[in-house]
Amino acid sequence: MGKIIYHPIGIIRTPFKPGDKVPVQPKFAEGTEGEIEIFPEYVQGLKDIEKFSHIILIYHFHLCHGYKLLVKPFFDDKIRGVFSTRSPHRPNPIGISIVRLKEVKNNIIKVSDVDIIDKTPLLDIKPYVPVFDRRKNVKIGWLENKLRF
Amino acid sequence: MGKIIYHPIGIIRTPFKPGDKVPVQPKFAEGTEGEIEIFPEYVQGLKDIEKFSHIILIYHFHLCHGYKLLVKPFFDDKIRGVFSTRSPHRPNPIGISIVRLKEVKNNIIKVSDVDIIDKTPLLDIKPYVPVFDRRKNVKIGWLENKLRF
Repeated sequence: MGKIIYHPIGIIRTPFKPGDKVPVQPKFAEGTEGEIEIFPEYVQGLKDIEKFSHIILIYHFHLCHGYKLLVKPFFDDKIRGVFSTRSPHRPNPIGISIVRLKEVKNNIIKVSDVDIIDKTPLLDIKPYVPVFDRRKNVKIGWLENKLRF
Repeated sequence: MGKIIYHPIGIIRTPFKPGDKVPVQPKFAEGTEGEIEIFPEYVQGLKDIEKFSHIILIYHFHLCHGYKLLVKPFFDDKIRGVFSTRSPHRPNPIGISIVRLKEVKNNIIKVSDVDIIDKTPLLDIKPYVPVFDRRKNVKIGWLENKLRF
Protein backbone atom coordinates (compact mmCIF):
# COMPACT_ATOMS: atom_id res chain seq x y z
CA MET A 1 0.00 0.00 0.00
CA GLY A 2 1.29 3.43 -0.94
CA LYS A 3 2.64 6.17 1.21
CA ILE A 4 0.51 8.78 2.94
CA ILE A 5 1.60 12.41 2.91
CA TYR A 6 0.66 14.96 5.55
CA HIS A 7 1.62 18.59 6.06
CA PRO A 8 2.01 20.19 9.49
CA ILE A 9 -0.76 22.64 10.38
CA GLY A 10 1.35 24.30 13.05
CA ILE A 11 4.15 23.95 15.54
CA ILE A 12 4.10 23.17 19.26
CA ARG A 13 6.32 25.30 21.52
CA THR A 14 7.16 23.98 24.98
CA PRO A 15 9.90 24.37 27.62
CA PHE A 16 11.34 20.94 26.70
CA LYS A 17 14.40 21.15 24.47
CA PRO A 18 15.92 18.14 22.70
CA GLY A 19 17.93 16.22 25.28
CA ASP A 20 15.79 17.43 28.20
CA LYS A 21 13.87 14.92 30.26
CA VAL A 22 10.38 15.20 28.83
CA PRO A 23 7.48 13.91 30.94
CA VAL A 24 6.28 10.62 29.46
CA GLN A 25 2.62 11.64 29.52
CA PRO A 26 0.55 14.80 30.16
CA LYS A 27 -0.32 13.18 33.51
CA PHE A 28 3.27 13.91 34.58
CA ALA A 29 3.36 17.34 32.99
CA GLU A 30 0.54 18.93 34.94
CA GLY A 31 0.92 22.70 34.90
CA THR A 32 3.60 22.74 32.19
CA GLU A 33 2.57 25.42 29.75
CA GLY A 34 3.07 25.55 26.03
CA GLU A 35 1.91 27.41 22.97
CA ILE A 36 0.71 26.11 19.67
CA GLU A 37 1.26 28.29 16.63
CA ILE A 38 -1.23 27.47 13.89
CA PHE A 39 -0.09 28.39 10.40
CA PRO A 40 -2.19 31.24 8.93
CA GLU A 41 -3.87 29.14 6.23
CA TYR A 42 -5.53 26.92 8.89
CA VAL A 43 -6.56 29.51 11.49
CA GLN A 44 -10.19 29.63 10.35
CA GLY A 45 -10.54 25.99 11.45
CA LEU A 46 -10.00 27.05 15.10
CA LYS A 47 -13.47 28.66 15.30
CA ASP A 48 -15.40 27.45 18.41
CA ILE A 49 -12.46 25.54 19.87
CA GLU A 50 -11.96 28.00 22.74
CA LYS A 51 -15.05 26.64 24.51
CA PHE A 52 -13.52 23.19 24.96
CA SER A 53 -11.49 22.59 28.12
CA HIS A 54 -9.30 19.84 26.62
CA ILE A 55 -8.04 19.14 23.13
CA ILE A 56 -6.34 16.13 21.55
CA LEU A 57 -3.09 17.02 19.80
CA ILE A 58 -1.90 14.68 17.07
CA TYR A 59 1.71 15.34 16.16
CA HIS A 60 4.84 13.99 14.54
CA PHE A 61 7.74 12.80 16.73
CA HIS A 62 10.17 14.73 14.53
CA LEU A 63 13.30 13.71 16.42
CA CYS A 64 12.61 9.97 16.09
CA HIS A 65 14.27 8.38 13.12
CA GLY A 66 13.91 4.65 12.68
CA TYR A 67 11.91 2.41 14.95
CA LYS A 68 12.00 -0.83 16.89
CA LEU A 69 9.21 -3.40 17.01
CA LEU A 70 10.38 -4.58 20.43
CA VAL A 71 11.15 -1.95 23.05
CA LYS A 72 11.88 -1.66 26.75
CA PRO A 73 9.25 0.81 27.88
CA PHE A 74 9.69 3.55 30.46
CA PHE A 75 7.48 1.78 33.01
CA ASP A 76 8.95 -1.71 32.74
CA ASP A 77 12.21 -3.63 32.51
CA LYS A 78 10.90 -6.26 30.12
CA ILE A 79 10.87 -6.17 26.33
CA ARG A 80 7.42 -5.36 24.94
CA GLY A 81 5.89 -5.07 21.49
CA VAL A 82 5.97 -1.41 20.46
CA PHE A 83 2.20 -1.32 19.80
CA SER A 84 1.58 -2.27 23.44
CA THR A 85 3.60 0.78 24.52
CA ARG A 86 3.55 4.55 24.04
CA SER A 87 7.18 4.65 22.88
CA PRO A 88 7.81 7.37 20.27
CA HIS A 89 10.00 5.01 18.21
CA ARG A 90 7.11 3.62 16.17
CA PRO A 91 6.85 2.64 12.50
CA ASN A 92 4.80 5.82 11.99
CA PRO A 93 6.03 8.18 14.74
CA ILE A 94 2.67 9.74 15.55
CA GLY A 95 2.04 11.08 19.03
CA ILE A 96 -1.24 11.92 20.73
CA SER A 97 -1.66 13.99 23.89
CA ILE A 98 -4.72 15.38 25.59
CA VAL A 99 -3.84 18.84 26.89
CA ARG A 100 -5.72 21.56 28.72
CA LEU A 101 -6.74 24.52 26.59
CA LYS A 102 -6.13 27.84 28.33
CA GLU A 103 -6.70 30.51 25.70
CA VAL A 104 -6.92 31.10 21.96
CA LYS A 105 -5.61 34.39 20.54
CA ASN A 106 -5.54 34.70 16.77
CA ASN A 107 -3.31 31.84 15.63
CA ILE A 108 -1.86 31.02 19.07
CA ILE A 109 -3.38 28.42 21.40
CA LYS A 110 -2.10 28.47 24.98
CA VAL A 111 -2.21 25.04 26.58
CA SER A 112 -1.03 23.31 29.73
CA ASP A 113 -0.16 19.75 30.81
CA VAL A 114 2.14 19.45 27.81
CA ASP A 115 4.46 16.43 27.51
CA ILE A 116 5.80 17.36 24.09
CA ILE A 117 9.24 18.47 22.95
CA ASP A 118 9.73 22.02 21.65
CA LYS A 119 9.15 22.65 17.93
CA THR A 120 7.16 19.47 17.36
CA PRO A 121 5.13 19.62 14.12
CA LEU A 122 1.39 19.50 14.72
CA LEU A 123 -0.77 17.40 12.39
CA ASP A 124 -4.27 17.75 13.81
CA ILE A 125 -6.36 19.03 16.71
CA LYS A 126 -9.56 17.33 17.81
CA PRO A 127 -11.87 18.30 20.67
CA TYR A 128 -11.66 15.88 23.62
CA VAL A 129 -15.18 14.58 24.25
CA PRO A 130 -15.54 12.13 27.14
CA VAL A 131 -18.43 10.18 25.63
CA PHE A 132 -16.29 9.52 22.54
CA ASP A 133 -12.90 9.16 24.19
CA ARG A 134 -13.42 7.55 27.58
CA ARG A 135 -13.87 3.86 28.29
CA LYS A 136 -14.86 1.90 31.37
CA ASN A 137 -13.87 -1.60 32.54
CA VAL A 138 -10.43 -1.26 31.06
CA LYS A 139 -7.58 -3.76 31.37
CA ILE A 140 -4.10 -2.39 30.80
CA GLY A 141 -2.01 -5.52 30.27
CA TRP A 142 1.63 -5.26 31.36
CA LEU A 143 1.00 -1.76 32.74
CA GLU A 144 -1.23 -3.25 35.47
CA ASN A 145 0.51 -2.64 38.83
CA LYS A 146 3.15 -0.45 37.16
CA LEU A 147 1.14 2.77 37.44
CA ARG A 148 0.38 3.73 41.00
CA PHE A 149 -1.31 7.13 41.17
CA MET B 1 7.56 23.13 6.88
CA GLY B 2 8.09 20.02 4.80
CA LYS B 3 5.82 17.11 4.22
CA ILE B 4 5.62 14.08 6.49
CA ILE B 5 5.42 10.63 4.96
CA TYR B 6 3.83 7.61 6.64
CA HIS B 7 3.26 4.06 5.47
CA PRO B 8 0.24 1.98 6.51
CA ILE B 9 1.07 -0.82 8.96
CA GLY B 10 -2.13 -2.69 8.14
CA ILE B 11 -5.69 -2.47 6.97
CA ILE B 12 -8.97 -2.30 8.91
CA ARG B 13 -11.81 -4.53 7.74
CA THR B 14 -15.34 -3.72 8.87
CA PRO B 15 -18.93 -4.26 7.70
CA PHE B 16 -19.18 -0.62 6.55
CA LYS B 17 -18.75 -0.19 2.81
CA PRO B 18 -18.25 3.20 1.13
CA GLY B 19 -21.65 4.85 0.93
CA ASP B 20 -22.99 3.00 3.99
CA LYS B 21 -24.08 4.94 7.02
CA VAL B 22 -21.08 4.59 9.32
CA PRO B 23 -21.58 5.27 13.02
CA VAL B 24 -20.01 8.62 13.86
CA GLN B 25 -18.18 7.27 16.91
CA PRO B 26 -17.41 3.88 18.51
CA LYS B 27 -20.03 4.85 21.11
CA PHE B 28 -22.66 4.32 18.40
CA ALA B 29 -21.02 1.21 17.02
CA GLU B 30 -21.16 -0.93 20.15
CA GLY B 31 -20.95 -4.57 19.19
CA THR B 32 -19.94 -3.95 15.58
CA GLU B 33 -17.06 -6.30 14.88
CA GLY B 34 -14.08 -5.80 12.65
CA GLU B 35 -10.68 -7.25 11.90
CA ILE B 36 -7.36 -5.56 11.57
CA GLU B 37 -4.81 -7.16 9.31
CA ILE B 38 -1.29 -6.17 10.28
CA PHE B 39 1.26 -6.40 7.48
CA PRO B 40 3.83 -9.17 8.14
CA GLU B 41 6.79 -6.83 8.63
CA TYR B 42 5.12 -5.24 11.68
CA VAL B 43 3.63 -8.29 13.41
CA GLN B 44 6.42 -8.57 16.00
CA GLY B 45 5.30 -5.20 17.40
CA LEU B 46 1.98 -6.76 18.50
CA LYS B 47 3.64 -8.69 21.35
CA ASP B 48 1.81 -8.17 24.69
CA ILE B 49 -1.08 -6.25 23.15
CA GLU B 50 -3.59 -9.07 23.69
CA LYS B 51 -3.73 -8.30 27.42
CA PHE B 52 -5.18 -4.84 26.86
CA SER B 53 -8.97 -4.56 26.70
CA HIS B 54 -9.01 -1.41 24.53
CA ILE B 55 -6.68 -0.07 21.89
CA ILE B 56 -6.43 3.29 20.13
CA LEU B 57 -6.44 2.99 16.35
CA ILE B 58 -4.88 5.83 14.38
CA TYR B 59 -5.82 5.67 10.73
CA HIS B 60 -6.09 7.54 7.46
CA PHE B 61 -9.52 8.64 6.18
CA HIS B 62 -8.63 7.29 2.74
CA LEU B 63 -11.92 8.30 1.10
CA CYS B 64 -11.64 11.97 2.12
CA HIS B 65 -10.02 14.15 -0.48
CA GLY B 66 -9.81 17.85 0.21
CA TYR B 67 -10.99 19.51 3.39
CA LYS B 68 -13.03 22.40 4.73
CA LEU B 69 -11.98 24.65 7.60
CA LEU B 70 -15.63 25.39 8.40
CA VAL B 71 -18.04 22.44 8.57
CA LYS B 72 -21.57 21.67 9.65
CA PRO B 73 -21.02 18.81 12.09
CA PHE B 74 -23.21 15.75 12.52
CA PHE B 75 -24.50 16.89 15.91
CA ASP B 76 -25.31 20.49 15.06
CA ASP B 77 -26.89 22.71 12.44
CA LYS B 78 -24.42 25.56 12.84
CA ILE B 79 -21.12 26.06 11.05
CA ARG B 80 -18.13 25.15 13.23
CA GLY B 81 -14.37 25.28 12.87
CA VAL B 82 -13.17 21.85 11.73
CA PHE B 83 -10.73 21.53 14.65
CA SER B 84 -13.67 21.83 17.09
CA THR B 85 -15.34 18.86 15.36
CA ARG B 86 -14.54 15.22 14.58
CA SER B 87 -15.32 15.63 10.87
CA PRO B 88 -13.12 13.42 8.66
CA HIS B 89 -12.63 16.27 6.16
CA ARG B 90 -9.56 17.69 7.90
CA PRO B 91 -6.36 19.21 6.52
CA ASN B 92 -4.62 15.98 7.56
CA PRO B 93 -7.38 13.34 7.43
CA ILE B 94 -6.27 11.37 10.49
CA GLY B 95 -8.86 9.43 12.48
CA ILE B 96 -8.62 8.03 16.00
CA SER B 97 -10.97 5.47 17.54
CA ILE B 98 -10.80 3.56 20.78
CA VAL B 99 -12.04 0.03 20.09
CA ARG B 100 -12.43 -3.11 22.15
CA LEU B 101 -9.80 -5.78 21.56
CA LYS B 102 -11.31 -9.26 21.34
CA GLU B 103 -8.51 -11.53 20.16
CA VAL B 104 -5.12 -11.54 18.48
CA LYS B 105 -4.22 -14.43 16.15
CA ASN B 106 -0.97 -14.13 14.24
CA ASN B 107 -1.35 -10.92 12.22
CA ILE B 108 -5.11 -10.53 12.73
CA ILE B 109 -6.63 -8.48 15.56
CA LYS B 110 -10.33 -8.97 16.16
CA VAL B 111 -11.99 -5.86 17.55
CA SER B 112 -15.46 -4.57 18.31
CA ASP B 113 -17.17 -1.16 18.64
CA VAL B 114 -15.72 -0.17 15.27
CA ASP B 115 -16.90 3.06 13.59
CA ILE B 116 -14.51 2.81 10.66
CA ILE B 117 -15.12 2.21 6.97
CA ASP B 118 -13.91 -1.02 5.36
CA LYS B 119 -10.33 -1.13 3.98
CA THR B 120 -9.17 1.91 5.94
CA PRO B 121 -5.35 2.10 6.11
CA LEU B 122 -4.04 1.78 9.66
CA LEU B 123 -1.15 4.02 10.75
CA ASP B 124 -0.60 3.11 14.39
CA ILE B 125 -1.96 1.22 17.39
CA LYS B 126 -1.50 2.41 20.96
CA PRO B 127 -2.74 0.81 24.15
CA TYR B 128 -5.61 2.73 25.76
CA VAL B 129 -4.54 3.59 29.30
CA PRO B 130 -7.09 5.51 31.40
CA VAL B 131 -4.53 7.38 33.47
CA PHE B 132 -2.98 8.72 30.26
CA ASP B 133 -6.11 9.13 28.17
CA ARG B 134 -8.94 10.12 30.49
CA ARG B 135 -9.67 13.61 31.79
CA LYS B 136 -12.05 14.95 34.42
CA ASN B 137 -13.86 18.30 34.68
CA VAL B 138 -14.22 18.53 30.95
CA LYS B 139 -16.13 21.20 29.02
CA ILE B 140 -17.24 20.26 25.52
CA GLY B 141 -18.11 23.61 23.97
CA TRP B 142 -20.82 23.52 21.29
CA LEU B 143 -21.39 19.79 21.95
CA GLU B 144 -22.79 20.61 25.40
CA ASN B 145 -26.48 19.65 25.42
CA LYS B 146 -26.13 18.01 21.99
CA LEU B 147 -25.09 14.62 23.37
CA ARG B 148 -27.73 13.02 25.54
CA PHE B 149 -26.78 9.48 26.53
